[in-house]
Amino acid sequence: MDPHAEMPTFADVEAAAARLRGVARRTPLLESDALNELAGGRLLLKAECLQRTGSFKLRGAYNAISRLDGRAVVAYSSGNHAQGVAAAARLLGVPATIVMPADAPAIKIESTRALGAEIRLYDRQGEVREEIGAEIAARTGAALVRPYDDPHVIAGQGTAGLEIAEQADELGARADAALICCGGGGLTAGCALALAERFPGIEIQTAEPESFDDTRRSLAAGERVANAPGSASICDALLAPMPGELTFRINRRLLTGGIAVTDAEVRRAMALAFRHLKLVVEPGGAVALAAALSGRFHTRGRTVAIMLSGGNVDPALFAGVLRESTPEPSLRDAAAPRPAPS
Amino acid sequence: MDPHAEMPTFADVEAAAARLRGVARRTPLLESDALNELAGGRLLLKAECLQRTGSFKLRGAYNAISRLDGRAVVAYSSGNHAQGVAAAARLLGVPATIVMPADAPAIKIESTRALGAEIRLYDRQGEVREEIGAEIAARTGAALVRPYDDPHVIAGQGTAGLEIAEQADELGARADAALICCGGGGLTAGCALALAERFPGIEIQTAEPESFDDTRRSLAAGERVANAPGSASICDALLAPMPGELTFRINRRLLTGGIAVTDAEVRRAMALAFRHLKLVVEPGGAVALAAALSGRFHTRGRTVAIMLSGGNVDPALFAGVLRESTPEPSLRDAAAPRPAPS
Repeated sequence: MDPHAEMPTFADVEAAAARLRGVARRTPLLESDALNELAGGRLLLKAECLQRTGSFKLRGAYNAISRLDGRAVVAYSSGNHAQGVAAAARLLGVPATIVMPADAPAIKIESTRALGAEIRLYDRQGEVREEIGAEIAARTGAALVRPYDDPHVIAGQGTAGLEIAEQADELGARADAALICCGGGGLTAGCALALAERFPGIEIQTAEPESFDDTRRSLAAGERVANAPGSASICDALLAPMPGELTFRINRRLLTGGIAVTDAEVRRAMALAFRHLKLVVEPGGAVALAAALSGRFHTRGRTVAIMLSGGNVDPALFAGVLRESTPEPSLRDAAAPRPAPS
Repeated sequence: MDPHAEMPTFADVEAAAARLRGVARRTPLLESDALNELAGGRLLLKAECLQRTGSFKLRGAYNAISRLDGRAVVAYSSGNHAQGVAAAARLLGVPATIVMPADAPAIKIESTRALGAEIRLYDRQGEVREEIGAEIAARTGAALVRPYDDPHVIAGQGTAGLEIAEQADELGARADAALICCGGGGLTAGCALALAERFPGIEIQTAEPESFDDTRRSLAAGERVANAPGSASICDALLAPMPGELTFRINRRLLTGGIAVTDAEVRRAMALAFRHLKLVVEPGGAVALAAALSGRFHTRGRTVAIMLSGGNVDPALFAGVLRESTPEPSLRDAAAPRPAPS
């Protein structure tokens, strides 16, 4: 992170919302009687999987790039940030170079290229992506767009939280708590800025995979701690090694803790979103719903905002989640043939 | 159909929209660059799979039941209409009895019962559901809620079309054409009333499964013709035996024809909605998208409204669609493991 970067504020989130008008979709805030019943409370589910590029990442990327006065950009990512930066750069008419590992799935490389970005492939073993990015920046004058530790990125992601507040108002609801999925912490920090301002006293917690609960443990320790190397999780969007500097400064101030969930809880949440919301949610996008249904977060009698952050999931993985979900009692009979309706 | 039933008009659709305010969700009208590219035009996709109960059926059921001044209702259906009637009756605080075949999937019976309806199971072989419904109506004074051939049901379903028009306006778009999935024709007729009024000159066509293209053939013949008995389709929501009387009178006036699609085309459309829209769409809900991508409808250079009518699909069927979709060229690499993102 740039040590001189300023801390973003609620006003920055509002300014980002103005920049994103007509660019980012105002994704719906959904509810399900069945999920409310399971939670024993009222869940307000923000469907960012319906955002352009299939995740919230467009918000922060566009807000950051729109402030660069037409400068080219460079980013490294093999996931949702790559597509967010590529789409934002295309919308703003600036060249984008995305540094991606050569062994990334071809589908991701193609999706990013289809959005008009130039792809610089690198060898994970023999090359260091940060050096490649710095070289491209020095040579071309391109600005680096960080995935989370950037005030404009944080403010942009926060517009999803601002929309939650507006949409809850429209429903006549007030969020008592919020669960936000957390990798490096940009979405969490941005949404916390918006939600703490709009719902004073709201309890905000992160949701993370159990081996990547660095923010939960950092909040408990009062300082940034890293994840153990060599851990694995199906939540590929949430595998950042440790909290960002800037994001953690915000999250330490506004959050009360975090919930870690197992892969099995994530898979169940994905199956429930399929059945009751008709949404495709990727593993990293389902951790907050998993946390709400884990029994380890206080949902009973409360209104809880839940972030469903993305839907970029492999068909084979999703099919596997559905296959294993069918023996669950509530889904047991769903595989039976359907008779002709009236 | 009641021979004295009045033909619904655009004003009835507007009145239904007023009744449904705060009851039916205003489901989003979505777009995808990838699907637009495949169609060579602009597809405006109405995500009624995100409607309460997982399909548009709540709209018509609520509009019809809300006019009955608190009378109890009865309906026969094992599918989306059952859930729509049960949910609407619960919202209006009136008792509902749903006549369902005893061999219907337990999941559907449970879902309908969970919405507060009384279930009367019948034996498909030994009993006639119409007789059971008439007996219940005579004994309890309950009103029968027909699935499509009812002016208030048609007007209610039409509110989805009215929303398409409003949401297209908000996008600054004008629909040149619309493809609406069609079983008995209630959704098609209602949407046609709204779309023909709001977009004069719009070309409206039905989308149907190839062995259940009774409305397409009826439009061509100028009179109602039935489907061949014994046909099969994965589109369980669209298996009505022939067009409704009232619906066909409207559709004959406002539609120019229909497109029939194969099960394979439907499955591909479901896989594309998964990948590019992050939506769970049931087979019957995907026929209009399948028609738009079939090459048999003129989408090139045009703006085409597409109805995605529901998402109530068995996990096993959906998993099968995803499994077979992976070898498709555009999805081929999607099953590869995902690396950790930046």
